[in-house]
Amino acid sequence: MYRPQIKVLDCTIRDGGLINNHCFEDSFVKSVYLACSLAGVDYCELGYRLSKKQFSQDKFGRSKFCDEDFLKEMTTGVKNGAKLATMVDIGRVELEDIKPKKESMIELIRVACYVKDIDKAIEYVKHLSAKGYDMTVNVMAISTALQPDLEEGLAQLSECPLKAVYIVDSFGGLFSEQVHFLVNLYKKYLSPKGIEVGIHCHNNQQLAFANTIEAIRKGANYLDATIYGIGRGPGNCTLELLLAFLKNPKFKLDPVLEIIEKEFLPLREKMEWGYIIPYMITGILNQHPRSAIALRASKDKDKFAEFYRTLLNDIELA
Amino acid sequence: MYRPQIKVLDCTIRDGGLINNHCFEDSFVKSVYLACSLAGVDYCELGYRLSKKQFSQDKFGRSKFCDEDFLKEMTTGVKNGAKLATMVDIGRVELEDIKPKKESMIELIRVACYVKDIDKAIEYVKHLSAKGYDMTVNVMAISTALQPDLEEGLAQLSECPLKAVYIVDSFGGLFSEQVHFLVNLYKKYLSPKGIEVGIHCHNNQQLAFANTIEAIRKGANYLDATIYGIGRGPGNCTLELLLAFLKNPKFKLDPVLEIIEKEFLPLREKMEWGYIIPYMITGILNQHPRSAIALRASKDKDKFAEFYRTLLNDIELA
Repeated sequence: MYRPQIKVLDCTIRDGGLINNHCFEDSFVKSVYLACSLAGVDYCELGYRLSKKQFSQDKFGRSKFCDEDFLKEMTTGVKNGAKLATMVDIGRVELEDIKPKKESMIELIRVACYVKDIDKAIEYVKHLSAKGYDMTVNVMAISTALQPDLEEGLAQLSECPLKAVYIVDSFGGLFSEQVHFLVNLYKKYLSPKGIEVGIHCHNNQQLAFANTIEAIRKGANYLDATIYGIGRGPGNCTLELLLAFLKNPKFKLDPVLEIIEKEFLPLREKMEWGYIIPYMITGILNQHPRSAIALRASKDKDKFAEFYRTLLNDIELA
Repeated sequence: MYRPQIKVLDCTIRDGGLINNHCFEDSFVKSVYLACSLAGVDYCELGYRLSKKQFSQDKFGRSKFCDEDFLKEMTTGVKNGAKLATMVDIGRVELEDIKPKKESMIELIRVACYVKDIDKAIEYVKHLSAKGYDMTVNVMAISTALQPDLEEGLAQLSECPLKAVYIVDSFGGLFSEQVHFLVNLYKKYLSPKGIEVGIHCHNNQQLAFANTIEAIRKGANYLDATIYGIGRGPGNCTLELLLAFLKNPKFKLDPVLEIIEKEFLPLREKMEWGYIIPYMITGILNQHPRSAIALRASKDKDKFAEFYRTLLNDIELA
C-alpha cells in the first residue's frame, strides 16, 4: 500500500532557473504550475524569494524574487492547484520584506544552507515560522559534511518548527548505502519530533532517481524532482520517473508527459542539462560542479579527458 | 578492498550495433577495442556471430558476424588487449560454422535466450564449450520471468560448463529490491557450482548504473557496460560510471573519456540513444521497447502522452 505521508515537491522553476538566471517566459512558468497541479504534485516551488537589493531585476527573472503579484499571475485560473513553495538562501534575503503568511500565497519556505550555516538557517526558520509559514531546511553538499558537525546540526534542527529537513546531494556524489546511512541518521534526530526527512538529488552519476527511491525505502517523505530532470548541470531526479514509481493514485503522469513534449523538448534545444561528462566527472570526484560549469562555458567544453586530469592534479596538490 | 573476481565486459559494439545494423566504420570499432584495452576492461564484445545464411552482409555490418579476419583486423597492434567476446542468439547461428577455440581469437561466447529457451541455450553451451570456448548464458527479459520457470532454468544451467549466467533487464524495468532478489536467487543455484552471476541493465528508468551497483553489492561479478551508455533505445550502464565506481586500480578512466570526446559525441549527433521518453514509458510499463522503437521511427516520435495512453489502453484490453 502506498505511503500517504509522501509529499512530492516540484522544483523545476527554482532549480532549472539556475541555468538561465530564472529568465523563464511567464507562459512557461504557468504551464509548469498547471502541469504539476494536474499531476497531483503537492508543492510547486516557483523560484527563490531573494533580495532585490542584492540581485538586479534587469539580470534576473521574476522567479528569482517570487513576489506576490508574480505568484498570483502564474497560478490564476488553476483550481485546487499545488501548494506554492519558494526557497531562500542564507544572507541573500531581507527577512523583513517577507509579509506574514496571511498576506501571501506561499505555503512553504525552504531555507538552503550548508552544515556550517545551520545556526543562521535556524534564525530564518524561527522568524518565518512566526510569520505563519511552513518551513524546511535543506542541507546542501551533504556528501562532504563531517558526521559530528551534521549530528550537532540535526540535534539543533530537531528543536525547530520544521516540516522536514532535507538531504541535498549537491554534488551528485552519493551512493545507495550512503543515502541509507544519512536517512537513518536524520531520522534518529528528527523522527521523535515529528519532523520528516527530505531528499534532493542531482544526476551527475545517473543516480538521482535511484537515490530518491533508496531514500523512500528508508523513510524519506519529502521528495524533490523536476520535469524532464531540468536543473543546473546534470539536473535532478525526474518528476515523470518519480510519479510513475509512486503508487498513490492521486499522481497522474499524463500532464507531465504532455508538458515535456510541448515545452521541454524545445527548451532543451536552447538550454543544456542532463548527462554531460564534465558533470559526471565532478560527481565521481565529489566536487562542486563550478569547474564543470566554467568548462561548459568555454571553448574547451568537450575536452573531457584534459578536464579530468586537471581536476585529479588539483586533488593531488591539495 | 576491491573484489578481484569482478570482470567488466564492454558490449559497446554488440549492443550499440542494434541501433545501426552493426554498420560501424572499422576505424570506430578499432578505437573502441583500443580504448577498452587501455582502460583495463576484461572483455570486449565486438558483436554477434550470427548466420550469414540468415542475415545479409549487404544489410548488416561486419560486427554482426565477427569472423576471424574481422577480429584480427580490429585488434591488430594492441598488446595485452581485452579478451574478445561475441554473442549468439538462439536459432540465428550455424553452430557447425564456429571453429574450435584453438583456431579462433574469441575467448568468450555468450548465448542470449529467454527463459523458455534455456534448454536450447544449454545445447549451444555444450557444443561450444566442447570446442574450447568459455561460455555464459544471458537470460533476457528477466523482469517478466515467472519464478518457478526461472528456478527450473537456473537449476539446469548450474549443471553446465559456464563462467556466468546473466540477469538481463531487457526492459529496464527492475528496481533495486528486485535486483537483490534475483542475484540472491541466481547465487542459490549457481554459487555452489562455481558459476558467477552477471548483470546487464538497460537505462529506461535511469537505473542501469544504479542496478549494476546493487547487483555488485549482492555479489554479481560479471558486469556489462557500454561507452557513453550506447545501446538500443535508452542504452545501457555507462562504462565510464562503472569504471569510476570500481576500486580495482587496473581500471583507467582516461581512455574512455578520450574516446567519448573524439568518437561518441559526433556519433550521438547521428544515432539516438539515452533518456528518451518513449523508452522511459515502456520501462515503467515493463514492456519490450519495440513499440517505442516504432514510434521513434515515425512522424509521431515526440507524441509522448498519446503513446502512453495507447500503451495503457493496450494493457487494459489485454
